[in-house]
Amino acid sequence: MSDRSPLALPFPPAPAIPGATPHIARARYKAWDRCDLTFVMLDPGTTVAGVLTQSKCPSPEVEWCRAALTLGTARALVVNAGNSNAFTGNRGRAAVEAIAARTAAHLGCQPSDVFVASTGVIGVPLPIDKAEAGLDAAFAAAPCSWEDAAATIMTTDTFTKGATTTAVIGDRTVTLVGIVKGSGMIAPDMATMLGFIFTDAAVEPAFLQAALSAANAPSFSCITVDSDTSTSDTVLAFATGKAGNVALSDDDSVGADAFRAALADLCHQLAMLVVRDGEGATKLIEVRVTGADSDLSAHRIAKSIANSPLVKTAIAGEDANWGRVVMAVGKAGEPAERDKLAIRFGDTQVAEGGLAVTGYDEAPVTAHLKGKEIEVGVDLGLGEGRATVWTCDLTHGYISINADYRS
Amino acid sequence: MSDRSPLALPFPPAPAIPGATPHIARARYKAWDRCDLTFVMLDPGTTVAGVLTQSKCPSPEVEWCRAALTLGTARALVVNAGNSNAFTGNRGRAAVEAIAARTAAHLGCQPSDVFVASTGVIGVPLPIDKAEAGLDAAFAAAPCSWEDAAATIMTTDTFTKGATTTAVIGDRTVTLVGIVKGSGMIAPDMATMLGFIFTDAAVEPAFLQAALSAANAPSFSCITVDSDTSTSDTVLAFATGKAGNVALSDDDSVGADAFRAALADLCHQLAMLVVRDGEGATKLIEVRVTGADSDLSAHRIAKSIANSPLVKTAIAGEDANWGRVVMAVGKAGEPAERDKLAIRFGDTQVAEGGLAVTGYDEAPVTAHLKGKEIEVGVDLGLGEGRATVWTCDLTHGYISINADYRS
Repeated sequence: MSDRSPLALPFPPAPAIPGATPHIARARYKAWDRCDLTFVMLDPGTTVAGVLTQSKCPSPEVEWCRAALTLGTARALVVNAGNSNAFTGNRGRAAVEAIAARTAAHLGCQPSDVFVASTGVIGVPLPIDKAEAGLDAAFAAAPCSWEDAAATIMTTDTFTKGATTTAVIGDRTVTLVGIVKGSGMIAPDMATMLGFIFTDAAVEPAFLQAALSAANAPSFSCITVDSDTSTSDTVLAFATGKAGNVALSDDDSVGADAFRAALADLCHQLAMLVVRDGEGATKLIEVRVTGADSDLSAHRIAKSIANSPLVKTAIAGEDANWGRVVMAVGKAGEPAERDKLAIRFGDTQVAEGGLAVTGYDEAPVTAHLKGKEIEVGVDLGLGEGRATVWTCDLTHGYISINADYRS
Repeated sequence: MSDRSPLALPFPPAPAIPGATPHIARARYKAWDRCDLTFVMLDPGTTVAGVLTQSKCPSPEVEWCRAALTLGTARALVVNAGNSNAFTGNRGRAAVEAIAARTAAHLGCQPSDVFVASTGVIGVPLPIDKAEAGLDAAFAAAPCSWEDAAATIMTTDTFTKGATTTAVIGDRTVTLVGIVKGSGMIAPDMATMLGFIFTDAAVEPAFLQAALSAANAPSFSCITVDSDTSTSDTVLAFATGKAGNVALSDDDSVGADAFRAALADLCHQLAMLVVRDGEGATKLIEVRVTGADSDLSAHRIAKSIANSPLVKTAIAGEDANWGRVVMAVGKAGEPAERDKLAIRFGDTQVAEGGLAVTGYDEAPVTAHLKGKEIEVGVDLGLGEGRATVWTCDLTHGYISINADYRS
């Protein structure tokens, strides 16, 4: 495992969520002596929503969850770390079905109430015997903390990632806890590698899905580590209803806005943690595009900048190389007029009107680039479209992790 | 300057092209003592064609050439190295106009017969005084070799890049010589960084343009080093007519097929040299996609694979990590069915039908990946669409060159 990311944050104090009880166990999917199977037991009445990868080559877990989400109810989440089970044909599908069947038998529920996610190497069928033995151990294990669960879903992650928040719904305060993993193969296309959110709020599935999709768009869908979209990206939100609020069902429900805001805040926190643990990351980069032809156009331009190896290496080198930002705007294929373009690093405008700002003060730019949180601002000068995307720098660490690793 | 690329090839013996005479000089655009200005004098009657970057933020040189190409005639090419003059506003445009005016005055031609290209840092106006002094020195200099010219247009390139071929047109044999530079910011969108082709054939401008565009599509437009499309990509072809063949004017001209084939061969050779000198490259990678829904779809999938940092680092690490190829196919957004996908490294099929080939022989795969020329084959199993794209691996060398460099 690599050194802890210099951008790491401590795991926050995370309260229990009534009705959602995590357990962990050793399935030993790899030759390691760490917990690698997470089982979260969900009480009857739990609703679920999810966003899943748009990859055309999804894992069988993703296909399973997509089908199960249509029912809107959940009794368990099982997460395997060390093996993504993606691209494994019938044997991979059989492994997911076996996990769901064994868990359903244990809980006395339908297999479709069991949600399964796996992360790790692609192309190796998940061994059913190890999964079943691991499940049995998890069923027998004492409940664990959310931080233990966050540690158990990690692969090349260097720190445990979680967030928590609350919302007031009528006379009840509901709690939300989320855990997430990330690191590499991160350019979520509707979701991130693996993220799980638990709340004791009572929420109808359709409303939960709408709120999650809305929260996902400006968070997980706006981060990129390496432009590589995983086959297994999954974000699931589970609502146990134990808080006893009147169930949220539509926009007019009491507390609907507060819950949506809390979920959006949680997703943003979790997404930032994924970028902070980007493989080899030493700097968190916020790319803010304004003045574009449309919000979608702004998003594409921001992604073009955030995915540019030349921009990411320049920031790794603490080099105010705004010419590479110009290049990335130019290649995005979106409406842009060179002579209306303005670029800033931090609060310092470095280029505008199609050329460098004459004699801009380099000191604050240099100071900004030496920090750990970098902001690149681009104004297109065309319209009202805006978007923000987060990424990390591209360093020797990324090469070491990915070129020196053997599958 | 970095060490010479391990994929470097020697500069080929390049014959003189009657009517096209290169000269080089020191304009000292940077604090270096090397030639950095190339002036190729073209005799009256020379025709020209070109393909230029699709960037929305092109350099003034690109805009100048785009306008001048509409006339179809050329008397000179001037190339500046060390400063791309891109994103420099009116001062950049003035520099291009000054170069064209001074060269036109020297040759007694129209400024629009002078083609200008520049490469190097973005955002610094090309100093007109240095350009003019450099031009005067070049006008006075003795003719040089094509290899000298190829050396003079280099920036972070580690070796001189040129190619030559011939074609029989009626009773004449015509010669083609091309020089090119590349290295970083290479994902040409219709052209590469800078490439120049000279022939003594007589060719009408429209036919030359059609032949160049056709030759560009499967060569320069099918290479990528880092997915970053330059603001200055330019390929120009000049035909002096000195070979005395009946001028090629359309598909029915005697020798039309032979000339097109020779031009296509030359562009392919030059494009491969650019990849071989990709920043930090240690392996040349050919990504061949077949069985796609269409040729365009195949091209997009091939580009998705060739631009994936995870695929490129896996190959740098000589790791047969075909799961990352699956990922890159899945994220391309093109029609794909996981369970019809087949993948090979070299001649060894490693995955097919949605899972790994059971017990495939790893020895030839390992041997193939230890070589310098790697072939990744992907068959989608859907249709007849096919495409081939070339790239290089992603190594510590790329990070060192781009993160440790200060603009």
